[in-house]
Amino acid sequence: MSQEFDVVVIGAGPGGYIAAIRAAQLGFKTACIDAYKGPDGQPALGGTCLNVGCIPSKALLQSSEHFHALNHGFAEHGINVKGASFDPAQMVARKDGIVQKLTAGVAFLFKKNKIANLHGLGSLKGRADEKWQIEVRDGDKVETVSASHVIVATGSRPRPLPGVEIDNKTVLDNTGALAMAATPKRLGVIGAGVIGLEMGSVWARLGSEVTILEALPTFLGAADAQIAREALRTLTKDTGLNIQTGVKIGNIKTGKTVTVEYEKDGKSESLTVDKLIVAIGRVPNTDGLGAEAVNLQVDERGFIVVDDSCHTNLPNVWAIGDVVRGPMLAHKAMEEGVAVAERIAGQKPHVDFGSIPWVIYTSPEIAWVGKTEEQLKAAGIAYKKGTAPFAPNGRALGMGQAQGTVKILADAETDRILGMHVIGPMASELVTEGVLSLEFKAASEDIARIVHAHPSLSEVVHEAALACDKRALHG
Amino acid sequence: MSQEFDVVVIGAGPGGYIAAIRAAQLGFKTACIDAYKGPDGQPALGGTCLNVGCIPSKALLQSSEHFHALNHGFAEHGINVKGASFDPAQMVARKDGIVQKLTAGVAFLFKKNKIANLHGLGSLKGRADEKWQIEVRDGDKVETVSASHVIVATGSRPRPLPGVEIDNKTVLDNTGALAMAATPKRLGVIGAGVIGLEMGSVWARLGSEVTILEALPTFLGAADAQIAREALRTLTKDTGLNIQTGVKIGNIKTGKTVTVEYEKDGKSESLTVDKLIVAIGRVPNTDGLGAEAVNLQVDERGFIVVDDSCHTNLPNVWAIGDVVRGPMLAHKAMEEGVAVAERIAGQKPHVDFGSIPWVIYTSPEIAWVGKTEEQLKAAGIAYKKGTAPFAPNGRALGMGQAQGTVKILADAETDRILGMHVIGPMASELVTEGVLSLEFKAASEDIARIVHAHPSLSEVVHEAALACDKRALHG
Repeated sequence: MSQEFDVVVIGAGPGGYIAAIRAAQLGFKTACIDAYKGPDGQPALGGTCLNVGCIPSKALLQSSEHFHALNHGFAEHGINVKGASFDPAQMVARKDGIVQKLTAGVAFLFKKNKIANLHGLGSLKGRADEKWQIEVRDGDKVETVSASHVIVATGSRPRPLPGVEIDNKTVLDNTGALAMAATPKRLGVIGAGVIGLEMGSVWARLGSEVTILEALPTFLGAADAQIAREALRTLTKDTGLNIQTGVKIGNIKTGKTVTVEYEKDGKSESLTVDKLIVAIGRVPNTDGLGAEAVNLQVDERGFIVVDDSCHTNLPNVWAIGDVVRGPMLAHKAMEEGVAVAERIAGQKPHVDFGSIPWVIYTSPEIAWVGKTEEQLKAAGIAYKKGTAPFAPNGRALGMGQAQGTVKILADAETDRILGMHVIGPMASELVTEGVLSLEFKAASEDIARIVHAHPSLSEVVHEAALACDKRALHG
Repeated sequence: MSQEFDVVVIGAGPGGYIAAIRAAQLGFKTACIDAYKGPDGQPALGGTCLNVGCIPSKALLQSSEHFHALNHGFAEHGINVKGASFDPAQMVARKDGIVQKLTAGVAFLFKKNKIANLHGLGSLKGRADEKWQIEVRDGDKVETVSASHVIVATGSRPRPLPGVEIDNKTVLDNTGALAMAATPKRLGVIGAGVIGLEMGSVWARLGSEVTILEALPTFLGAADAQIAREALRTLTKDTGLNIQTGVKIGNIKTGKTVTVEYEKDGKSESLTVDKLIVAIGRVPNTDGLGAEAVNLQVDERGFIVVDDSCHTNLPNVWAIGDVVRGPMLAHKAMEEGVAVAERIAGQKPHVDFGSIPWVIYTSPEIAWVGKTEEQLKAAGIAYKKGTAPFAPNGRALGMGQAQGTVKILADAETDRILGMHVIGPMASELVTEGVLSLEFKAASEDIARIVHAHPSLSEVVHEAALACDKRALHG
């Protein structure tokens, strides 16, 4: 007889594994189906994020930052070295070790929470007696399980570039970009999004000449324009990225090297590189899910259609994370996963899309939450702004990372904080104060009046809040 | 005729310079008197904090952390170096550059805010016609100014150890500890407080054998006991500090080396070192202030007596920062400085001592805000606690700093957060979330339900909040 569950989650990325854990915590008999295999051919939980996304990229970024600091900053500290060399294979091995630790950690959490860990591709087969049948296919091995509730968390995959084949040897997607065992002399990147900028930064710091080609005319169009301008300047000048926006990609010829023909400002150009990373965004992944067979509604862009509660058009079928509308962010998926599990348990959770932070882990980091200045202008909302630089911050100077800006936007009338934008050291952590400000409906004066530890980077947030009222103390 | 001011601030440390800036912002004709001279013999604003405290220590900590990482962690990243050498003199020169930049920054802010910058020792001379006379003495140069309001911000100085002379060559206080131009083979530190631990960490990472002798039986008695235990373990094992608590210091013999005789567990011991740092706390500094002459009330421990609004027993004389009751923390002084300036302007500001964060910049850092578990027990408050380790955190692993714990304490009945305690990477920044939680009277469930960026260190705070409700997702 087939195994019966209360909840089956399809996909063990951050959305899926968290949904499974929360469902199990709430007393449901839970299974999680996942098809991903690591480079060793063994099942590896955690999805794109843990295996070939957020986590490994942060590991490589740290290694490359150390190497960059060694070459460009250590002498100032009195540290002198002779003959520094870099072994990308060891960097990648360290990264693989961290990934392995975390994916094993998810397997451990499944065990601890008594979640059935089913390896294979999950497909919806139909529903009978209020139970969904889900097939789990691992090569020739096929098993069918049933569940009262299904949570689809199948995530996303790289958007393909028509006519270009990803071989992960010369032309790479995120998986290949994270596994290069040697530093390419010339690296091309198509797409100046998060992945392109993070990977470009890693390899630029390790010595590659990096050129990034972006189709959109505006650099980091989703970010606040002032922060995006500062990012462009810093990434160009300090990290050494050659970023070309507003290009039209033409033919791509692959051989021992890769040549990308493109048009910029009406002129034909070409770029020849040793490796090319294609990172032009990600598309929802419903491969093998059997959506059509059961009439699961999918929109024209491939997203599973859900309502505000992440419920699909099918009874007791939910979908979360990258495969549904909203930002493709791991922490958004996780929150949806928790919320869906709680809804199945009859609770009334809520996910506020307005206070979800964005982070780009370049150096300096870029992070924001809430509205940009451009969004406020477009919406006709009167606002005031306060900005403060990291340049005079004692902690940032001590760290040798006194670059960047914090910008706070607040309602002109009520003083309520509407957005916080950071480019600077540890922006990924500093943005938390912005998230809490939005969640607690804080006024800029609240943040201005709250004691911030000295010396800390958060003092720059404090100054930006003071600046909203034109009373920055260090400005 | 003597210069007349609305507000004269005595002392240009963080409390004093901020008070002066805020007073000037509020429209007062303001002067700030400061006697400190830098190593070049020139006036240097910023007080202990900028010159020989918080800021320079962070600069040295960063340098020593880089050197430690180079020697102990870089190989794992694939970075191999031959012949790394360390030049403490260059490290100290970098530190001096940062200090110089910041002290010059304060001078710039004074100019910008039209604050008279008076160099010399400020003394209260008396009051006539509702104006205080303040003498400013710089060697033979004596000037007298008058002011309607005086803000005393004279700070603190190292507590002397009876019978031991600080020569800042062999026996050092914080000033000497920050200026050593060579790494001592053996370094002794008397006092396992913030300064002792930070300076001990710097020199241990640079290769010194460091022994810290602490009179109190409990290590870091002000911190939550669980965090303090973890700190002791880490600082001993990883930083290599030899920390001896509960010792009774006996004779100290100084020559080419220093020998400290002490008693521990009833046994006589002795420690011979090349340099000795004495860091047994700080005492309020009222030297030359003329407190007695004008009957300014000072308590038996040397603190200027103030009420909740920082007003002294004398009309229109205020005192802030280390020279008054409360924690000797720069950010506490700054907040008092702002508050006093605003009170002089007739505003009603408020400084909440209950939400002032504490930070110790060791590696890992230690930071906390609010109540410790021991304080809650002593007060008979029923609480729940949630703890979460950094060990499984993806960002911490990427950084190579996956050590430490976040602990949140919340009221058992109302769930309101009462304290947050962190030992781990960037604890100094993570504690801000605790400060905001206390200020906004957040429940642990609030923090549990707020989206935290992935991957970020703040996810460990999130997990600790979830753990308060026994529903940690990664625990």
